Amino acid sequence: MVKKISILGSTGSIGTQTLDVIRQYNDMFEVNLLTTNSNIDLLYQQILEFKPKKVLINNETKYNEFQDLYKVDCEVFGGREDLLSLCSDKETDLLVSSLVGFSGVEPTLNAINSGVDVALANKECLVSAGKLITKSAKKKNVKIYAIDSEHNAILQCLVGEESSFIEKLILTASGGPFRSLEKSKFKEITIKDALNHPNWSMGSKITIDSASMMNKGLEVIEAYWLFGISPDKIDVLVHKQSIIHSMVQFVDGSVKAQLGLPDMRVPISYALTYPMRFKLDVPRLDLVKISELNFEKPDLEKFECLKLAYSVLNEDATKAIILNAANEIAVESFLQEKINFVDIPKVISEMLNKISSNNLEELEEIIELDRKTREFTYNYIGNK
Amino acid sequence: MVKKISILGSTGSIGTQTLDVIRQYNDMFEVNLLTTNSNIDLLYQQILEFKPKKVLINNETKYNEFQDLYKVDCEVFGGREDLLSLCSDKETDLLVSSLVGFSGVEPTLNAINSGVDVALANKECLVSAGKLITKSAKKKNVKIYAIDSEHNAILQCLVGEESSFIEKLILTASGGPFRSLEKSKFKEITIKDALNHPNWSMGSKITIDSASMMNKGLEVIEAYWLFGISPDKIDVLVHKQSIIHSMVQFVDGSVKAQLGLPDMRVPISYALTYPMRFKLDVPRLDLVKISELNFEKPDLEKFECLKLAYSVLNEDATKAIILNAANEIAVESFLQEKINFVDIPKVISEMLNKISSNNLEELEEIIELDRKTREFTYNYIGNK
Repeated sequence: MVKKISILGSTGSIGTQTLDVIRQYNDMFEVNLLTTNSNIDLLYQQILEFKPKKVLINNETKYNEFQDLYKVDCEVFGGREDLLSLCSDKETDLLVSSLVGFSGVEPTLNAINSGVDVALANKECLVSAGKLITKSAKKKNVKIYAIDSEHNAILQCLVGEESSFIEKLILTASGGPFRSLEKSKFKEITIKDALNHPNWSMGSKITIDSASMMNKGLEVIEAYWLFGISPDKIDVLVHKQSIIHSMVQFVDGSVKAQLGLPDMRVPISYALTYPMRFKLDVPRLDLVKISELNFEKPDLEKFECLKLAYSVLNEDATKAIILNAANEIAVESFLQEKINFVDIPKVISEMLNKISSNNLEELEEIIELDRKTREFTYNYIGNK
Repeated sequence: MVKKISILGSTGSIGTQTLDVIRQYNDMFEVNLLTTNSNIDLLYQQILEFKPKKVLINNETKYNEFQDLYKVDCEVFGGREDLLSLCSDKETDLLVSSLVGFSGVEPTLNAINSGVDVALANKECLVSAGKLITKSAKKKNVKIYAIDSEHNAILQCLVGEESSFIEKLILTASGGPFRSLEKSKFKEITIKDALNHPNWSMGSKITIDSASMMNKGLEVIEAYWLFGISPDKIDVLVHKQSIIHSMVQFVDGSVKAQLGLPDMRVPISYALTYPMRFKLDVPRLDLVKISELNFEKPDLEKFECLKLAYSVLNEDATKAIILNAANEIAVESFLQEKINFVDIPKVISEMLNKISSNNLEELEEIIELDRKTREFTYNYIGNK
């Protein structure tokens, strides 16, 4: 049976890699919807190759530009309102949710509420709206397949196992560029240092999150919601080669790991075909060539952002809205040289102390707390 | 539902560890049958603790001694004939086949032919009689769960997956004590050197097999039968720490591995409870403490026994009867200082050239070829 795929953010990194995978599996997938914010030229190329039934351009100017420039065979939509209604489209079998940021939450939620399975690459869905998203998915019996390599690795380790067999989830972390840097040197970290990730080439926000290990903190929160596991059963293990993407320790003492070269097409493919696997033309892992895998304990005194993520989970997991929003503003401010690298956890911690929240569950409340936190954080940094 | 377990060789290493596991899972298992060759004192202790319905002592003198010494509540049988008929007992849900050597084949086959699932620790069942055993199991829809850590690791990696997803099985090997020894030094290897295994404490025969890497060759043959995989899809990877017990590479480029401290109770437990897992009190893996995992390509010029195993599979897998029997006599002769360590593969290779076989399948033929090979090998070594 052909699976109908919709991709939110088809011109971004996850979107284009998803289409790379779909290209390899001809006849197995049909593209229903592609969306872009503003990259209309690439969208046009994608239309020619993948023949979607519908496309959407979020940016109004770009939407008009596209309509003037290109003649296409599919329906062309524009703007946020259309996006939200297209996501409720029951014609989709699997929605690839790869919009960046908070704006990805509502479209994803609409898909879930319409009973559409989701391959999830948007972080905010689980970090900020984990309770709402997982509750809705449960209600509608919708499956959420995480695309990022860590949670996808856990999904792979758990196939054929029962959740009651889990003793511990072990999320691996590269440790970023400052893994071996002494804590006393952290105050000298420059933007250039922080953008220099050893294993993965990613956008600047996520690269900074990787350097501060906030990315791993956010992944711990995502794992908490996705697998329904208490924070004391989620470990982070520093593994600088990023070959083991994550592990599960079972109640019988056995550990299962998923390994591979860093290549997002593997988890994307698994999310698209779960529980099946199809032949994928990606470079194979050669452990003889890799030769050595190393492991260390993460230093929570050095990587305070990771510590903050655990403290949020131990207190009230919905407070991750504040953690995430404050972190985004802090990282932006760091990239604009308004604050130092070491200020990032300080700013977040201050916001967590100052802003109150109480086990939020409604989308409007979540959006409002996110907005409020961003405003507070801007002001706090501006007045420093 | 309580599972009724019978253990062939309950006083041996696998047998006692199986009872260790059963002790942890009270109420889940009932012991139906325990057998020993001659260790009647330990058998008596096991009877008191595990209350089997039946026991069997293989050695006649010891059987008589037991009857004189002990009064027990269960039925007591003696000798090979009773053993064979007890294995056809349909009251058993799972037979743990941990007799050592060729004598374990017929009892195991009887169990399979009676529709009894088997947890397999006897090597000869698959190495020498793989075709017969797997064919019988298929016919009777009987499940065979390998107990040794490598095949059990693969079983764990394959749960929830389909066999068509497999691209490659990767059996890990410690590499034994001579992993780093130059080939030119192999002729100086003493019995003491060869018995000094870095990771596992085992009997002397299997320790020598580990030093020559014949154990890995035999495991490649077992994997061939157990998973129905062609030899070019079975790789051996030297991994000196013995933490990753084996891996499966899938067609999408993803690799799954099973890890743990070397402790046979974990694979035994999995074979007993598959596909379930129950809490097992064994030491947990701490990768921070392990710190480093290393990988190397096996050197087939140094470890000729491993090369011989692959050549048997590529020619006629039932020739492994000759490989296995000649190896046993060669190892015995090495331990008696009749031949050198480097002569082991030479002797086997000579026997593989000299003795003919033709895709044997009947138990009588297999037994006869095994006997004949042993006799030829004795004579060959005696006349050297």
